[in-house]
Amino acid sequence: MRGAAAVTTGEFLERFLAGDRLALARAISAIEDEAAGYREFLREIYPRAGNAYFLGITGPPGAGKSTLVSGLAEKYAARGLTVGVVAVDPTSPFTGGALLGDRIRMQDLAGNEQVFIRSMATRGSLGGLAKATGEVALAMDAFGFDLVLIETVGVGQSELDVASSADTTIVVVVPESGDAVQAMKAGLMEIADVLVVNKADREGADLMAKELQVTLELKPGDGWRPPVVMSVATEGRGADEIVAAVTAHRDYLEESGELAARRRARVRRQLEELLTYEFRRRCAATPEYEGLLETLIAEVQAGRLTPYEASARLFENILREP
Amino acid sequence: MRGAAAVTTGEFLERFLAGDRLALARAISAIEDEAAGYREFLREIYPRAGNAYFLGITGPPGAGKSTLVSGLAEKYAARGLTVGVVAVDPTSPFTGGALLGDRIRMQDLAGNEQVFIRSMATRGSLGGLAKATGEVALAMDAFGFDLVLIETVGVGQSELDVASSADTTIVVVVPESGDAVQAMKAGLMEIADVLVVNKADREGADLMAKELQVTLELKPGDGWRPPVVMSVATEGRGADEIVAAVTAHRDYLEESGELAARRRARVRRQLEELLTYEFRRRCAATPEYEGLLETLIAEVQAGRLTPYEASARLFENILREP
Repeated sequence: MRGAAAVTTGEFLERFLAGDRLALARAISAIEDEAAGYREFLREIYPRAGNAYFLGITGPPGAGKSTLVSGLAEKYAARGLTVGVVAVDPTSPFTGGALLGDRIRMQDLAGNEQVFIRSMATRGSLGGLAKATGEVALAMDAFGFDLVLIETVGVGQSELDVASSADTTIVVVVPESGDAVQAMKAGLMEIADVLVVNKADREGADLMAKELQVTLELKPGDGWRPPVVMSVATEGRGADEIVAAVTAHRDYLEESGELAARRRARVRRQLEELLTYEFRRRCAATPEYEGLLETLIAEVQAGRLTPYEASARLFENILREP
Repeated sequence: MRGAAAVTTGEFLERFLAGDRLALARAISAIEDEAAGYREFLREIYPRAGNAYFLGITGPPGAGKSTLVSGLAEKYAARGLTVGVVAVDPTSPFTGGALLGDRIRMQDLAGNEQVFIRSMATRGSLGGLAKATGEVALAMDAFGFDLVLIETVGVGQSELDVASSADTTIVVVVPESGDAVQAMKAGLMEIADVLVVNKADREGADLMAKELQVTLELKPGDGWRPPVVMSVATEGRGADEIVAAVTAHRDYLEESGELAARRRARVRRQLEELLTYEFRRRCAATPEYEGLLETLIAEVQAGRLTPYEASARLFENILREP
């Protein structure tokens, strides 16, 4: 817990604000561990945030998201931008589950001073991961990155929530049987601003792209039409087209005023998450909580109370002022 | 919302308790929609629950979970047991994202009077899906099913939580590059009571099974050793072995006293979920909540408050007694 103590000092904050990457890495660890002082640290850096553009990349496992993220990070870096990457995908090569070829690509990036990559631990309590991811993205924003890329696996509600809170959301699918249908069922189409058909050198890619285009044209609304971009991420094919689509979407958001609305929605989600989180934290910090919970579990198991009655009783007792 | 009104009547409850499957279907819709009267309904049926055995089936998308679930449901039905199936996987054939072959299998089951299948909608608020799934499983338990099968995709924290709250958890993987490593990264190994290598007619299956066995033997603890079972779910191969492994695990749980501990942990999780849920519900029901939230969002966006200060203020105001 060395990082824990360090983030509370003024000297540490100075190093962070001066652009020390080691300080950023420590700050992220402190956020993940909820180490002492991390909340105060976030309060301090918050006024520095708000300048980064948030780009979410999501899709089913095996769609090649991490390779795509690497390629995009390189592209943006080559254009002079600084890029922070936060990967929330438990199956991501960034977190270790990679084939050899993927790892080599990641290492290429590791030497790039304009790019900073961090993967998130996926073990955590309900909603804890989404909260931590938002805070890590905030830290990267305050650190001064022009662009923050957030990679999540597009399965699971909290993962979808993370993805859809970006300014622009890229959904990645591959031309395999049922992949597009599954993506639709998982709610991925609804959150897509840019659709990428990756591994487009495989059979069926053109047909899939056409089907997706038709589906997207059926969507209601007369605002943004998500374009379908073909890509072969392992060869870097399609990266320029994706960057162009993201730029077009950003222009649309700014001109239509929707960027402000999206960011407002993101703040709202953040406040509601923090509110729930604060409630859970206070429960755990209430001295009588654990004993009362144990008693109520026993009552429920003995059939004397339903869980609904028990949780109502728990709720009333915690809210009672001391 | 016809189902909504119906679940509040005594006549509806009678039909449910008499084993009317249409009443069960309506009750589940009421739970999913949080229709008027569903909480009272759950209170009424709660004392009838507690007899079903909960079997969780989880694993990466494409592992063949749904086919396996169908096969297991058929097996148990052939042994004279009644089976309720709840599928939480957004990529599940039960929810529509199926290949033709899968659909045919599902239809085979649809005619089986001992089996009842229900898939859950996956759009919902933070933690809402896990809560609803637990309640649907409870309804199936109270309805009188001997066995409740819960299928979830093993990616995402809340999905893992749902899977691990079963009495026995089956983790399904397929012999494809990186699948086992990915399953480990996603925390699937930690929750497995029975490991199934599905699509075991594919190359690499034996090697994968051996590697998994070695990994599992390295796990600490001297209690249950999760067996590795080979299966080809599409041909029904391995189903008997899986049933035998589940029975062995159940015997172990009962003899060691661990079944009671697991069910205690499940009640605990349920109470804590309901507690958080109750908090969110009361926030939404507080008349000043929406207005205050809007004001605070504006303050945060103007840079006059950090989200941490804003959420603390929101929290204090909601907790203030009227």
